[in-house]
Amino acid sequence: MTQSISSLYFPNEPKQPTVVSSHAKSQAATDALGKVFDNRGVYFVADYDKSNGNYIADVDGNVYLDVYAQIASIPLGYNNPALIEAAKSDKMIRALVDRPATGNFPGADINEIVGDILKVAPKGQDKVWSGLSGADANELAFKAAFFRYQAKKRGYLTPFTQEELTSVMKNEAPGSPDLAILSFERGFHGRLFASGSTTCSKPIHKLDVPSFKWPKAQFPAYKYPLEKHIEENKKEDERCLKIVDDIIQNNQIPVAAVLVEPIQSEGGDNHASAEFFQGLRDITLKHGSLLIIDEVQTGVGATGVMWAHERFNLQPPPDLVTFSKKFQSAGYFFHDPEIIPNFAYRQFNTWCGDPARMIIAGAIGQEIVKHDLVKRTAEVGNYLYAKLEKLAEKYPKYLQDLRGKDRGTFIAWTLESGEARNKFLSDMKTVGVNIGGCAEDSVRLRPTLVFEEKHADILVEAIDKLLSTY
Amino acid sequence: MTQSISSLYFPNEPKQPTVVSSHAKSQAATDALGKVFDNRGVYFVADYDKSNGNYIADVDGNVYLDVYAQIASIPLGYNNPALIEAAKSDKMIRALVDRPATGNFPGADINEIVGDILKVAPKGQDKVWSGLSGADANELAFKAAFFRYQAKKRGYLTPFTQEELTSVMKNEAPGSPDLAILSFERGFHGRLFASGSTTCSKPIHKLDVPSFKWPKAQFPAYKYPLEKHIEENKKEDERCLKIVDDIIQNNQIPVAAVLVEPIQSEGGDNHASAEFFQGLRDITLKHGSLLIIDEVQTGVGATGVMWAHERFNLQPPPDLVTFSKKFQSAGYFFHDPEIIPNFAYRQFNTWCGDPARMIIAGAIGQEIVKHDLVKRTAEVGNYLYAKLEKLAEKYPKYLQDLRGKDRGTFIAWTLESGEARNKFLSDMKTVGVNIGGCAEDSVRLRPTLVFEEKHADILVEAIDKLLSTY
Repeated sequence: MTQSISSLYFPNEPKQPTVVSSHAKSQAATDALGKVFDNRGVYFVADYDKSNGNYIADVDGNVYLDVYAQIASIPLGYNNPALIEAAKSDKMIRALVDRPATGNFPGADINEIVGDILKVAPKGQDKVWSGLSGADANELAFKAAFFRYQAKKRGYLTPFTQEELTSVMKNEAPGSPDLAILSFERGFHGRLFASGSTTCSKPIHKLDVPSFKWPKAQFPAYKYPLEKHIEENKKEDERCLKIVDDIIQNNQIPVAAVLVEPIQSEGGDNHASAEFFQGLRDITLKHGSLLIIDEVQTGVGATGVMWAHERFNLQPPPDLVTFSKKFQSAGYFFHDPEIIPNFAYRQFNTWCGDPARMIIAGAIGQEIVKHDLVKRTAEVGNYLYAKLEKLAEKYPKYLQDLRGKDRGTFIAWTLESGEARNKFLSDMKTVGVNIGGCAEDSVRLRPTLVFEEKHADILVEAIDKLLSTY
Repeated sequence: MTQSISSLYFPNEPKQPTVVSSHAKSQAATDALGKVFDNRGVYFVADYDKSNGNYIADVDGNVYLDVYAQIASIPLGYNNPALIEAAKSDKMIRALVDRPATGNFPGADINEIVGDILKVAPKGQDKVWSGLSGADANELAFKAAFFRYQAKKRGYLTPFTQEELTSVMKNEAPGSPDLAILSFERGFHGRLFASGSTTCSKPIHKLDVPSFKWPKAQFPAYKYPLEKHIEENKKEDERCLKIVDDIIQNNQIPVAAVLVEPIQSEGGDNHASAEFFQGLRDITLKHGSLLIIDEVQTGVGATGVMWAHERFNLQPPPDLVTFSKKFQSAGYFFHDPEIIPNFAYRQFNTWCGDPARMIIAGAIGQEIVKHDLVKRTAEVGNYLYAKLEKLAEKYPKYLQDLRGKDRGTFIAWTLESGEARNKFLSDMKTVGVNIGGCAEDSVRLRPTLVFEEKHADILVEAIDKLLSTY
């Protein structure tokens, strides 16, 4: 039997959830918070000191198996000893108290910190630029794509014209050109202004926010189970690729880059085939647009490979790959040296990332490699998926369109309505599980990379127990 | 004599700079970095382990008096023991290894962490929202302003219309309305897309980046010395206020908020009077626009008050005040409860800030209060300014338009050209000082809050020594 990584990391991990069913302390702390901070999204106030491995504790003493993991962003379980060691290192203390303007005055350990991150870069990528969040990573990638797109037209080392230098100060072309990022309906890429303009999953993310008038293509909507709808789904790929091609050819604003998630995550765990992504790569090459793969949610192992798009064997590799969440640090990978802008201070800001968070990312990568956690996640995912398939047979109304087969623990399914889904998510706490949703009507599993068969058993039993009362 | 805070914090702080004049190791590390990361802005590779108090060391053994302080962002000196203590705390370890989705699952210490930040909030502000950088803080504030502006028209609790819910998914009005932030020529507010659209100081910040077509007003351009040009400068205030009033009345896109720095920092340390800012407050009230004060660079003590706009006695206080840099954490303060959006998940993202950085901010605030560092900075600034005035008499060509009198150590001056300024900044390293510029032709002093008379003496002597060779 494979050694249990969770037992190695977490000798005191709970054996099962504890549900005390009181939420008084959590409610009181949330109410207090509401006087000074937006508390409207708070589910509960956590006790991170008592959280351990795959279990999150709240301040009332409830201990939940956590398959949501801070919106898909805890990689190695709560209070992982390897990360605690990194957090206590001298390198970390310096990064915290002497926060550098990394672009101007990087520290002596910068090559080590960046090198550790690059050790787990996607295949074909060997350079990185650092940011602070998924939205930030995407917007930095947009900037890099716009710089590169214009440099291709202008010549990499060609100086700016006087007209560009003057017009840009008025936010006018040619210095501030009208260029677009093409993204997909149901995609999610963040909530700042440019990233928000590419996001297209729910109105609440965007209402009242001015936006760039950038186009949206359609992402394939497959019929499930996939093996029974091969021809139809292939036609769906072709239909969607044609839309992309048409938009790039005809859009009034030139499309500098196509932005896509390997699996649309927030938008409902919508999968598409390798052929679809290869088609996207070909279309971008044909038109001279860049290809940006947003791996903010899919990256770092959860899908059973380190980076989800590596399954697609894209040639050449994507121009930019953004990351955040499970890497606990943010930024983009790239390979073309000319993605680094021709002059200093173009891709720049005061901090250019956060070495403290980059150190954590390096430690995460190292642990993943050391314990082969991507392979383990693939195995555990297969184990879990098979059990969920059986549950789907037992409760077809509550586990529709099960998806994520052979995609590690990156699994989702759909309920018959948003109300049914919300009730399910909330009720799962009564059987000891913290679980999240995606789209309006779906459930998404986003456990850590140290989620094992024994945790899968507890999850499946809890779902069974709950649904047997429905 | 006042106790020396720097001696208390840094018993081993160097007594003077060390210039070894070799840069070989720094160059080698920078070259290595360039293979995987944009290294074009790197001045030198720092040795933060050996940096101490007001002195920054590089990997070659040079030790500079640092009056640039990571682009105005190191608050309490390198390796400050109080921050090291915060960095080693259990609370910090948890924040680093169990990074929460703060909007959904805040930790048990959230009220303490937020409370510590609010202890040093600007007068009249009692709530906060957290982000990750200055640009992020400003864009989050823009979103809050747009939400509030629309809520005033719609009614705070009025649900969205079906038309809004549908049109927003196409990035179209009314769901995604055309609304503007009015900012000022020579202002700097960050380099993401919306913040970049409000930034108007240098072309390099903006070239090739698509932008929102938001208007710019003119910021007063005073004649110096101020006491000799009172009438002219008053007229300049009036002229600029009229432009603001005209734009808000006539701009095709409604102006939801006016965004302004208390001192335009990156853009040249351009000061304006309390009357000018009071005029802005009045104009925004008259037209129902919000007032956002960008304290990213001016905040946290350097100007001799905790927040630079507190000198203006604005009534009512600004609607939003953004911060970052010296606070080491980012976000905005506010007071109107309806700045918190009517529904959950409007002002939201995965992490909603970073508790690790918020803990540092709280510790910074506490130390500032405990050691009265704002008052000390005001005193040291006056001492330094008087000495610089004498230098300006001695070298009028190299210290033109000296500004920042009675503004703590937030001091700047102008040289006769960009080339002369750049040569001065570079040459200052040969006399042991790390110093930065602003605008094309100016020098800005941005030392820490533990910069004292003895450091001011070394700085002034170094400038004198250098300029005597010109």
